Amino acid sequence: MQRLREIGEEGLLKIIREGFPESSEELLVGIGDDSAVLELRDSRVLISTDTMSEGVHFLHSLFTPYQIAYKLVVSNVSDIHAMGGSPRWALLNLSIPADTGYDFIDPFLKGLRCGLQTYGVSLIGGDITDSQASVFTITMLGLAEIFITRSGACPGDGVYLTGPVGEAACGLELLKTIARPVRLEEGEKLELNLPWDDARVVLERFLLPKLPVMPGPSESITSMIDISDGLFIDLWRLCRESHVGARIYEEKLPLSRHQQSVAAFLGLDPYILMVSGGEDYQLLFTSPEDMEGCHRIGEVTREGLSIVRIDGRVEEITPLGYQHFGS
Amino acid sequence: MQRLREIGEEGLLKIIREGFPESSEELLVGIGDDSAVLELRDSRVLISTDTMSEGVHFLHSLFTPYQIAYKLVVSNVSDIHAMGGSPRWALLNLSIPADTGYDFIDPFLKGLRCGLQTYGVSLIGGDITDSQASVFTITMLGLAEIFITRSGACPGDGVYLTGPVGEAACGLELLKTIARPVRLEEGEKLELNLPWDDARVVLERFLLPKLPVMPGPSESITSMIDISDGLFIDLWRLCRESHVGARIYEEKLPLSRHQQSVAAFLGLDPYILMVSGGEDYQLLFTSPEDMEGCHRIGEVTREGLSIVRIDGRVEEITPLGYQHFGS
Repeated sequence: MQRLREIGEEGLLKIIREGFPESSEELLVGIGDDSAVLELRDSRVLISTDTMSEGVHFLHSLFTPYQIAYKLVVSNVSDIHAMGGSPRWALLNLSIPADTGYDFIDPFLKGLRCGLQTYGVSLIGGDITDSQASVFTITMLGLAEIFITRSGACPGDGVYLTGPVGEAACGLELLKTIARPVRLEEGEKLELNLPWDDARVVLERFLLPKLPVMPGPSESITSMIDISDGLFIDLWRLCRESHVGARIYEEKLPLSRHQQSVAAFLGLDPYILMVSGGEDYQLLFTSPEDMEGCHRIGEVTREGLSIVRIDGRVEEITPLGYQHFGS
Repeated sequence: MQRLREIGEEGLLKIIREGFPESSEELLVGIGDDSAVLELRDSRVLISTDTMSEGVHFLHSLFTPYQIAYKLVVSNVSDIHAMGGSPRWALLNLSIPADTGYDFIDPFLKGLRCGLQTYGVSLIGGDITDSQASVFTITMLGLAEIFITRSGACPGDGVYLTGPVGEAACGLELLKTIARPVRLEEGEKLELNLPWDDARVVLERFLLPKLPVMPGPSESITSMIDISDGLFIDLWRLCRESHVGARIYEEKLPLSRHQQSVAAFLGLDPYILMVSGGEDYQLLFTSPEDMEGCHRIGEVTREGLSIVRIDGRVEEITPLGYQHFGS
């Protein structure tokens, strides 16, 4: 099997360029020159960027290359969605050791292509470099007529979630007990002591997340953020940027039966998973209106951040969730 | 001294956000939300991205943190210049081990700020992640009315360079013999057995490169690329994209007296440094016109890629220069 050492930078660039033959009205120059060039009419352009690094965001012992790439696309699309925008173009930075084999590159590019196609995004550029550890970055550009920031929440607004949170964290814990990659993208099924349907849902949420339908209309939403690090920390960030507080209710938090089943199997507390588990890529937003199809979990207040537990106790919310550098 | 482990992701984000208070007419949302938002009128937007990884692009044993950041900015600005554009906005991805100290972060951000200010670029977003090795990416956006690709060279055009090549490679070789970082940004001078002015010029070209004045007018330029990997490989890339050949002349290659002096001191062949040394960030371009202030090193031909040596021998040019993965 060929390794990058043999394929070379020019060889890998050729594989990517031929595998992603992009064209659109706006794209004047794509992969292969010093810069990409887009011709845009009067536009609001959204730009976000997300990095996944080996040993932090993924382990080769638990992820297939397909899943690493797919998830990297999703985390970037989610950032554009969280601003109310439509993702359109992406750049990829591949920093990867020279002894990486084509058996990594090929499924990685398949996962990348599937993720980009799912969300209508074109690959228009990037950079390929040798490195000691694998670090992958996607930078995504999108367009929005109306964009939604983290800073517009008003006291009295409802606090909403587009779907259950904690499933991804539950999926990660289950995956750790399986202790090897699960090829969900190829339809792999495992024999576990719990219903496969429950296991599959939480594993998929962690490894190949599907993004929620965008809530709308945009005009009704006062602030929005995606749940990438955990409900509590992301709610804390949204409230900080909006200079408001919030009160949420444990009984209103959407808990999927799949998560309930897997958490019970693993002996984990579903509440902890729901409030501090990251990477669900659900959207957390605020609105003064009744947002059908979404879960109203509480309301925006003038100050303070608290949760009313099922037993009636009121607890202060601390920014619990994933922070890099472990502080 | 504080380490990132203590400062935390939120702490580092706060330092960056306060250190880069950007504002401009077009910037509706900057650092701190899920995406940055730019409001652009009808525009041609250039987007490029460059990564620098530890052990490949830099060694902590030879670079100051200031130089790593400054050079990363310059390599991105150079890509925008190579398309004939003006750089405007940047995103930074910092993937960095948790035990990194503030004595790295502080000068790194100073070098970043100086580089961005020098070229009129605003930092508008990014991502901070823990990682096993340091990998830094900047993605840069620029604007251009007329853009120049690698693919417009025509037989008969002159081949031009904006300045000497090989100085950066010469600087790297000198730095290896010094075997420790040289704080040029603080005016540090060393006692070496050669004139400091010669040493300083080649060290600066490698560590704190100044970009050349853009050749112009843009309408006169048929193709352009920046010399990031080496004259021969970058000329080969330009000719491949333009479906042409080129003949260049050794006697026309601009060789600085500083490089001549340092190469003699190190016992290196200046010719090899000139044709295969990377990271000079000079611009290589083609034009049917007489481009004043630039060095005409040869001409575009229908096919073939060759150099006429000083002694009259004609040698075929192979894509000699830096390629990642060492193939």
